[in-house]
Amino acid sequence: MQLYTYFQSGGAYRVRIALNLKGLEPEMKFVNLVKGEQKDAAYEAVNPQKLVPAFIDKGHTLTQSIAIIEYLEETHPKPPLLPKDPFARAYVRSLALLIAADTSPLGNLKIRKYLAKEMGAAEDKVTLWLQHWITEGLAAFERTLARETYAGEFCCGDAPTMADCVLIPQVFNANRWKCDLSPFPRIKKIAEACGKHPAFIAAHPEKQADAA
Amino acid sequence: MQLYTYFQSGGAYRVRIALNLKGLEPEMKFVNLVKGEQKDAAYEAVNPQKLVPAFIDKGHTLTQSIAIIEYLEETHPKPPLLPKDPFARAYVRSLALLIAADTSPLGNLKIRKYLAKEMGAAEDKVTLWLQHWITEGLAAFERTLARETYAGEFCCGDAPTMADCVLIPQVFNANRWKCDLSPFPRIKKIAEACGKHPAFIAAHPEKQADAA
Repeated sequence: MQLYTYFQSGGAYRVRIALNLKGLEPEMKFVNLVKGEQKDAAYEAVNPQKLVPAFIDKGHTLTQSIAIIEYLEETHPKPPLLPKDPFARAYVRSLALLIAADTSPLGNLKIRKYLAKEMGAAEDKVTLWLQHWITEGLAAFERTLARETYAGEFCCGDAPTMADCVLIPQVFNANRWKCDLSPFPRIKKIAEACGKHPAFIAAHPEKQADAA
Repeated sequence: MQLYTYFQSGGAYRVRIALNLKGLEPEMKFVNLVKGEQKDAAYEAVNPQKLVPAFIDKGHTLTQSIAIIEYLEETHPKPPLLPKDPFARAYVRSLALLIAADTSPLGNLKIRKYLAKEMGAAEDKVTLWLQHWITEGLAAFERTLARETYAGEFCCGDAPTMADCVLIPQVFNANRWKCDLSPFPRIKKIAEACGKHPAFIAAHPEKQADAA
């Protein structure tokens, strides 16, 4: 097993958490996004989408963090990252996708570069853009947690699920861009619980060998 | 079963295709995104994320198109929208997420409004933004199809999967914004096959009762 990763990539961070929860230790291959290594021909041969993470198992290359986590869940079912009940499974997936589809992609490096270069946005406008969409996404996440009765110590019950694997990198990102998390007490409480969990601690960007 | 939908929403279009493939006919509830009905308190009570689609089954409300399709797959397994092989499943999911996470959200109405209002982007700059990210996403999709040997008449084999449910609304969107699809022969061929399939035909935006 190999994981192509970059310490600050939210997608790679999600998969690192899931791998740690499953007790799997792939070889780490580092792709420096700031240096643009994801666009090198050598990496495009690994992932034609030119994104991290990419995950290699048994000669197959898997891409997209959520697809990789679903694969890990199917091939290494213990401990489970999805509950058994179909509605609870859909709930956990919807929380993960609220971040992975509707929040996180808006803050990617390539988006920030496009805003600056092609739209002529000043640095403070790009920061406001990031803060706006991160805050909107986390607000929707908080409202969803508040409406349902699934939450325990973690997003769904008292053990981490795929939703926590996706939430925590987004909280890291929110702190990086100095978003105010005080309106989100449920998210803060879950982030505190995750912050004490070894799988989350070991996956943290600052603990990675490629951390700047 | 009820589906909260808007004819031009890519997420709702994906779920309409999946429902048709599964032979399910929920009651359709229309949410006019252009009129801003997704922000009404009545709809926020349905979906705290203020997005379509939302899907109601047995008193539970499900959100996020990919989570809804996974739920349909688990509760109505025939015909399958995911292959059996774990690597092929991961492949289909990765194609779906390449669009659902990394392409489609960048073109949402709320993004276009923010670019115009908060970033002061002129209409032609917003159109270029849309065309840029749609084309980049479809190019990555085409490269992924080209590298793997899964494709048949559809994205993976000779029957539609979740990947086709997600690709076709993005192709509709690409045509809407006048993107050049000629560099993407594999996508065009799959779109032609889907264009002849009754489940895809019935899900088309122009066939919906709320089409403008």
